[in-house]
Amino acid sequence: MQLYTVLFGAVAVGAAVVAILFMKIAAVAVTDAKAAKIAQAISRGAMTFLKEEYKVIALVVAVVASAIVYFLGSTPAIIFVVGSMFSMVPGFIGMCAATHANVRTTMEAKNRGEHAAFLMAFFGGGVMGFAVATFGLLGVAGIMYQFGGHKDIALYLTTFSLGASLVAFFARVSGGIYTKSADVGADLVGKIEAGIPEDDPRNPAVIADNVGDCVGDTAGMGADIYESYVGAMASTVILALTLYPDKPAYTTLPLVLAAIGMVSSALGLLSNLVLRFQPAAMLRNATYVAIAAFLGGVYWYLGYKGLPIPLFYAVAIGCIAGISIGLVTEYYTGGKPVERLAESCQTGAATNVIYGLALGMESVVLPVMMLGAAVLLAYTFGGGDLYGISLAAVGMLSTVGITMTVDAYGPIADNAGGISEMAGFGKPVRDITDKLDALGNTTAAIGKGFAIGSALMTALAMFAAYAEKAGLVELNVLDPWVMVGMFIGGSIPFWISALTMRSVGRAALAMVQEVRRQFKTIKGLMEGNAEPDYERCVQISTRASLREMILPGVLTVLSPVVVFVIFKEKALGGFLVGATISGVMLALFMANAGGAWDNAKKFIEAGALGGKGSDAHRAAVVGDTIGDPCKDTSGPALNILIKLMSVVALLLVSL
Amino acid sequence: MQLYTVLFGAVAVGAAVVAILFMKIAAVAVTDAKAAKIAQAISRGAMTFLKEEYKVIALVVAVVASAIVYFLGSTPAIIFVVGSMFSMVPGFIGMCAATHANVRTTMEAKNRGEHAAFLMAFFGGGVMGFAVATFGLLGVAGIMYQFGGHKDIALYLTTFSLGASLVAFFARVSGGIYTKSADVGADLVGKIEAGIPEDDPRNPAVIADNVGDCVGDTAGMGADIYESYVGAMASTVILALTLYPDKPAYTTLPLVLAAIGMVSSALGLLSNLVLRFQPAAMLRNATYVAIAAFLGGVYWYLGYKGLPIPLFYAVAIGCIAGISIGLVTEYYTGGKPVERLAESCQTGAATNVIYGLALGMESVVLPVMMLGAAVLLAYTFGGGDLYGISLAAVGMLSTVGITMTVDAYGPIADNAGGISEMAGFGKPVRDITDKLDALGNTTAAIGKGFAIGSALMTALAMFAAYAEKAGLVELNVLDPWVMVGMFIGGSIPFWISALTMRSVGRAALAMVQEVRRQFKTIKGLMEGNAEPDYERCVQISTRASLREMILPGVLTVLSPVVVFVIFKEKALGGFLVGATISGVMLALFMANAGGAWDNAKKFIEAGALGGKGSDAHRAAVVGDTIGDPCKDTSGPALNILIKLMSVVALLLVSL
Repeated sequence: MQLYTVLFGAVAVGAAVVAILFMKIAAVAVTDAKAAKIAQAISRGAMTFLKEEYKVIALVVAVVASAIVYFLGSTPAIIFVVGSMFSMVPGFIGMCAATHANVRTTMEAKNRGEHAAFLMAFFGGGVMGFAVATFGLLGVAGIMYQFGGHKDIALYLTTFSLGASLVAFFARVSGGIYTKSADVGADLVGKIEAGIPEDDPRNPAVIADNVGDCVGDTAGMGADIYESYVGAMASTVILALTLYPDKPAYTTLPLVLAAIGMVSSALGLLSNLVLRFQPAAMLRNATYVAIAAFLGGVYWYLGYKGLPIPLFYAVAIGCIAGISIGLVTEYYTGGKPVERLAESCQTGAATNVIYGLALGMESVVLPVMMLGAAVLLAYTFGGGDLYGISLAAVGMLSTVGITMTVDAYGPIADNAGGISEMAGFGKPVRDITDKLDALGNTTAAIGKGFAIGSALMTALAMFAAYAEKAGLVELNVLDPWVMVGMFIGGSIPFWISALTMRSVGRAALAMVQEVRRQFKTIKGLMEGNAEPDYERCVQISTRASLREMILPGVLTVLSPVVVFVIFKEKALGGFLVGATISGVMLALFMANAGGAWDNAKKFIEAGALGGKGSDAHRAAVVGDTIGDPCKDTSGPALNILIKLMSVVALLLVSL
Repeated sequence: MQLYTVLFGAVAVGAAVVAILFMKIAAVAVTDAKAAKIAQAISRGAMTFLKEEYKVIALVVAVVASAIVYFLGSTPAIIFVVGSMFSMVPGFIGMCAATHANVRTTMEAKNRGEHAAFLMAFFGGGVMGFAVATFGLLGVAGIMYQFGGHKDIALYLTTFSLGASLVAFFARVSGGIYTKSADVGADLVGKIEAGIPEDDPRNPAVIADNVGDCVGDTAGMGADIYESYVGAMASTVILALTLYPDKPAYTTLPLVLAAIGMVSSALGLLSNLVLRFQPAAMLRNATYVAIAAFLGGVYWYLGYKGLPIPLFYAVAIGCIAGISIGLVTEYYTGGKPVERLAESCQTGAATNVIYGLALGMESVVLPVMMLGAAVLLAYTFGGGDLYGISLAAVGMLSTVGITMTVDAYGPIADNAGGISEMAGFGKPVRDITDKLDALGNTTAAIGKGFAIGSALMTALAMFAAYAEKAGLVELNVLDPWVMVGMFIGGSIPFWISALTMRSVGRAALAMVQEVRRQFKTIKGLMEGNAEPDYERCVQISTRASLREMILPGVLTVLSPVVVFVIFKEKALGGFLVGATISGVMLALFMANAGGAWDNAKKFIEAGALGGKGSDAHRAAVVGDTIGDPCKDTSGPALNILIKLMSVVALLLVSL
């Protein structure tokens, strides 16, 4: 069979899944007027945000594209623009699906029960998951199809990746600031000051809060994973072109892996239509079916093509590492450590924060060692060069269709709960959505771990491609230029984290003031006789998040440029390594500390240690609030940072 | 003049300064019975702690010494034991002086006013400062004198350094846990629950708290700086032996620098006896006089010996880097950032913590860039090899006599305030000691920055010596073994920080329970009719801190051994680099975040934003409590960790 028939066939499978799932979602009617109205407000808020965000990103893209035209010519610039658009489209499609599926999940919970409701949220996530996979594979395969033998193919893949990375960075940062400013604003004033429950329709920030779940956890996460997917494929191709110029099967292998992954993901999804377990089992089942099918397919393909079987081990190691990191994350943000963290709340907020910081720090160790082992094993078994490491990254990401589906399921279930509360659907419905939402929290933790792990592997793959492209046969740490590059690189993630933490603080403050103002000035609001001005809160979050995303973005893009211009390519190599190491560790630290604080609070709210309203609960709320920007803004931003810097470096050596 | 005449002459100068200052301290009589009794309790507590600590350390030293005898023979083992004893003696002498000078500072404040009180605290610090310098130089010069031409001289210097490092690690960690468990215990129950002021004699933990200042801030800091001083000298000698085997002047240069630094420090001290400024000006003045004299002396010596003048630049760059980092630390823990942090307390504890974390993260950037610049400049100007970097480390540390004096001044002034409060000396005395104490907070911040900077430079010097000894002409990051070493190394500081943070939490909890118990069971305590059981609190802190120091110590010593045995010397090189980068950044982050929280609280307590008892103050107290283990336990432990791991690695390649 022709290579491109297979690749575009897999793209067609992905597109078909997206279309079918969308139709399945649309087939459910929203029969409740109030729920429909709320859902529309969330949808409108999310779409307004996306539109405004894309406007700002378009400007940045235009500036960068002009620079690329000037330095490299128009073809790479056009590919860059296409790359950035390809990154926006799945975000848009996924968001559309999520804002349709959320209210329909609520309706299904009301009319047809848990299983139907679960499937609706799962289908909503599936649109995002398969849209990411479809556009990623379409983009990279399309470039290979068009420019396969061209001398500038590496450059084209790099600019395509750069487009994806740039959009991803802004989507992650602005989405992260949006969701947390709205969340903190809604919680601090609504829950703590006014004493009304979560998702109460009297809270002016409640729509913004639900929009935030979509734009942060769905669109932001989607752009993050999309970028890893594209980056891993592109850098593996570039590496193969340099290392194995006369073995085309090595160059096309990452694309074939992605194609196999696409079909396997579809099988995983399908298995959930046939089988009928508990929701938690179904989510796990879908992933395991997909990975088993994927590995089987890869093994068959390598044999069929006569490629060395050790490459299979590299791919398998990537898969296993991805799952393992997710499980470690789940342990630290859900297991025994969280119970102990909750206990520390009994002596106040300070001890909760101290133990949470310690938990976050400790949680760095195991994943880093695992990733280290994966790198070493992939290198050793994958043929003894950097291609093996790169292939492990692709292996980890090939089943992105199903991984991202599971990720995107969470915020939809969360939204469904919000809508059922606001629409006043009562306890039985809320119980179902709460159960689905709790499950979403677990998948979110696993997803975060996976996102960090895949970001690291992708960054390493890009770094390997950079080193090859820059002609670095060695990058000697004993060379002080390399050493200093590592120092500077290591400090950048701290800087970006500081900036984004403060951004959330500032944006949340604006939100707090607005919510307070509405409670004070809108008469009859607390009694339920008047409606709050949801729109205004949505605007505040939108504007603040777009304003605050600029500086970190500029800093991330320009810092490798500055290092390259002043210190040259060896120092830049050191810079990338330093940034990757400190970036991954800070990302793990913040994601897991934040997740643990969140769940310790939920643990207490579920009735432990005095339950809601106890002193322990108050201490837990402080920890949760601190953890919010850590886990949903600053931490995730670092995933993209390490990839974006690497791809900028890769572009610089192409000049 | 003979080399060793100069070196031992400088040692004699240092010893003379120690003796003279001790006599000057002893010459002041303690005429107040109550103050004498309190001082005696503090002194007894500190000495008990040191004795118990030294017992445990002696055990560890015996185990390690046996291993050295087995693998390397008895001479290096004996030198190792001497090295560890040489590290304990200045701590002991300094502590003696501090516990004599504290009460005499109070007496001078009462009887003779601010200037005399300042000088007393300054002299107390001077004993520590010059004891550190004297024993450090005596040790290294003594080994060179005895074994100068011996083939194993590098090994002997390494085991001497290892002795210093091992003792320093335990002193830092146990001192840090001691001081913070006592502090948190005293504050949480005394200040917050019982509502009595700081240093109130009714608080059972008040003596332990004051002992903690001595054992943590004096003995712990002294051991830290002593280790940097010895380590920098030793590794520069080792490096010179390998790089310049036929240029003995390069080998002895670090020792001569230390000798010049000793005399210059004495001049700086002397200048304060002649001149008479405000306390703050005098502390600055002493440092600047010493550094100017030092640089002048070095310039003259290089010309006199016909050594290349560029070496002067390397030394000067080290000096400047040391001061600059101190000033950046002062800015972040005392300037505008702290005012803004205090403002964030108005919206509660959560925002205070978020902004404090952001501040700490941001504060990493500038010092790291400065140190990077220093490394690069020292390398470039110092002759284009690693010797230049190593020499910069020695330059930074040569005036340790005066730097450490200024550092050790702080806790004495702090103690003096505590004694004047407990002895009921009234407001005029307390005003003087408060002023001296506030000044001590500034010098403590600068000292912490200096300790981190010098630890980094020393670790780099040791790393350079390691690379030379291991015969690594290059340490290639593109080699996955090196890369994985960096990953693992980078994660260790997170692990150790997590362990030490939790240790403080556990020890503080034991203290809280004891203080609560005493308040409940001792009748008439609150009314001032009965005395609390100070002794019991001292015991709790002592035992807890000694118990908790073992695991981090074992982990730090064994992890490079494990990496070396499994992955060999290249991976160990990567491991050291990873640990150094992440260790320095975490240390800066924690030290500065903690310092800023502390000072934001003090800023509010001084009357800003509602002052004591306001909501903002309550939020600030939470931040301060979180910052305590960060800045005084976990952060400082990392300074030693990076040096201790490097020296263990250096020993491993000597096998």
